[in-house]
Order: sequence, then C-alpha cells, then structure tokens
Amino acid sequence: MELLEQYIREKGVVKKGNVLKVDSFLNHQMDVHLFSEMGREWKRLFADAPINKILTIEASGIGIACIAAQLFEVPVVFAKKAQSINIDGEVYASKVQSFTHKRVYDVIVSKKFLSPDDHILVIDDFLANGCAVNGLLDIIEASGATLEGVGIAVEKGFQEGGKLLRERGVRLESLAIVDAMDAKTGELTFRH
Amino acid sequence: MELLEQYIREKGVVKKGNVLKVDSFLNHQMDVHLFSEMGREWKRLFADAPINKILTIEASGIGIACIAAQLFEVPVVFAKKAQSINIDGEVYASKVQSFTHKRVYDVIVSKKFLSPDDHILVIDDFLANGCAVNGLLDIIEASGATLEGVGIAVEKGFQEGGKLLRERGVRLESLAIVDAMDAKTGELTFRH
Repeated sequence: MELLEQYIREKGVVKKGNVLKVDSFLNHQMDVHLFSEMGREWKRLFADAPINKILTIEASGIGIACIAAQLFEVPVVFAKKAQSINIDGEVYASKVQSFTHKRVYDVIVSKKFLSPDDHILVIDDFLANGCAVNGLLDIIEASGATLEGVGIAVEKGFQEGGKLLRERGVRLESLAIVDAMDAKTGELTFRH
Repeated sequence: MELLEQYIREKGVVKKGNVLKVDSFLNHQMDVHLFSEMGREWKRLFADAPINKILTIEASGIGIACIAAQLFEVPVVFAKKAQSINIDGEVYASKVQSFTHKRVYDVIVSKKFLSPDDHILVIDDFLANGCAVNGLLDIIEASGATLEGVGIAVEKGFQEGGKLLRERGVRLESLAIVDAMDAKTGELTFRH
C-alpha cells in the first residue's frame, strides 16, 4: 500500500537489532487518517469474505482494528495480555513470546465473544515471527470460529512469520512488507 | 448520553465490589457504532476547544480515542503501561494505582509526542478514583502542553475521581455517570 510505505519511508526509523520504529504514526502516536485508508484497503482486499468480527491484541492493534471495523461494520474483540479480575473465568488462552518485550505472556479472550458462528478477520500492526498472530489463531481454533484472514499493517518479510502463515494456507494481507532494512543507512526495501 | 446509558442498562452487569462490567461493548468486545456516537457527542461538547491531540492510556481507551480522533481530525497518543525497548529513553512518566488490577504501574509517554504547543483532550473509558486520568494530567503538566478537557465514557459518580477533577477546575465531560448500583438487583442510577 503506497501511502503506508510512504509513511514508513518518511517517518519510520530503522534501529539496530531489526527494530523498525513507526511510533510517530502507528503504535504510540497514531495517525487516524492513515488508519482509515488502511481500513479501506483491507475492506477492498477482503470484500468477498463473510467477516462478522475483528480480533486483535492489545495494545497497538486496537486502534487500527477499531477504525477498520467501522468500514466492515462489525465489532472488535481484543485479546488481553494478562488475567484481569474483570474477566470472567471462562476464557480461551494461548501463550505468546514477545519479540519487543522479550518475555512470554498469556493471551486471553472471553468465551462469550467468540463462537462457532463467527467469521474472524485478525488485525495487528506488526508481523515478525508471528507469535502474536499464532496465539490469536490458536484461540480462534479453540472457539470453533472460522478464520477468514489476517490483515497486518507492517510485515517484516525477512522474519519467518508471514512465510509460515502463507504455507499454512492462511489468507494474509500485509499492507507493507519490508524485505530488508539497514540500520546504518536507514535504507528500506519493500516487497511488491 | 442516552445511547450509552441504554447500552449500560441493557448489556452492563453489576458485580460485587463496585464492578460494572461493560465488556460486551466497551472494553473487551467493542461496539464501534456506539464509539462513533460517543465521539460525535464529545466533538459537540468540546466544539469550542482548540484541541490538536487526544491522549489516552492503553489498552481500553485506545479504541474510543481513535474513533473520536477521526471526528476531531487530530492524532492520538496513548500512554504505555511499562517501559518497552521500543520507546526512546526520553519519556514523561507517572505512577498509577490500578483499581482493576490492584497494583501500581508506571505510565509513560515519549517526549517526542507532547510539547508546549499541544492542546490536549484526554479520553478514557472509565473514571472511578481517577488514578489513570491523574497520571495523564501529570504527564501533560510536565510536558508544558495545555489540558483542554477530559472525556470519559463511564464515570462512577459514587467514587471520588470525578468530584476531585471538577474541584480542580478540569473541564470533565462524562457521557454516563453512574451514581449508584446494586449488585443484588442489578439496578443502576444515572446522574442527569
């Protein structure tokens, strides 16, 4: 998606350790005009899918998921990263390894909000090793719901998450795929 | 706000310990049609304020903040609840006591995203003791930005957060204020 690539080129910062900082528009400060255009693109790409719910994971997936949900006219459910006393006992749970925070955490979704009747679009901001998305797919499978596809803002194409999802037959639509990045020069190579 | 009160009456659940569960439409599953109407109401209430940025706190404030931000045509910044390696060193920080999780955590915002030129609307889903909002106000004060007001979805009027903010002269617009709730009967009393 041209507009997202332009934002990444102009406002993204490549850091050591394969870190791509997009915190000025995607996941700390959030540019809702861009999010709206991203939502429109996912709506176009998944126009034929009978999606009735969007599933994302806290925290930085929530904004893009909510704005996309307005275009799909469906509710959003976000998976939570820790057990809260405000969550009922009955939850679907999965374990996720965080690339950013270098730890393992539990991801949970209340059983009230996923059922075999649901057709789910998963939305998240980043896809690297795919751990967060795989946690969400585990939860969808446990619920009996149908996975219609996965919409990602920025995929790191040089890490294996996207490749493994496509090999499993998951319909994956990443709006920008970074195939290479150089922390010294700041150079970015996008897949087209 | 009539529509939000109707959602709370029809879909909210009053639990022991002053817990009002609104997780089927506000903060686990999210009804973006309702969020859009809430954003419209805040836009009407703050029409005269020169707001150029919305500040919220992860996780459940992000969805309502992003959808409101579309109507205000401004970016959103969300405060993060823990130090991440993806945040630059320079942050504004405050400590917040969580009512829900019964612990103290750090709340941080990168200094890049708040400046003395900013006119901030704070948005959050719940106001009870006001700890989260007070943490955000500390951060705004430290940045030199101007606080234009606070928009809350559900205020628990029988806890002191709202009262203390109003006494400080903060322009607070809560879309629903619950003055009393009864866990045995499920009865809710709204302030009008």
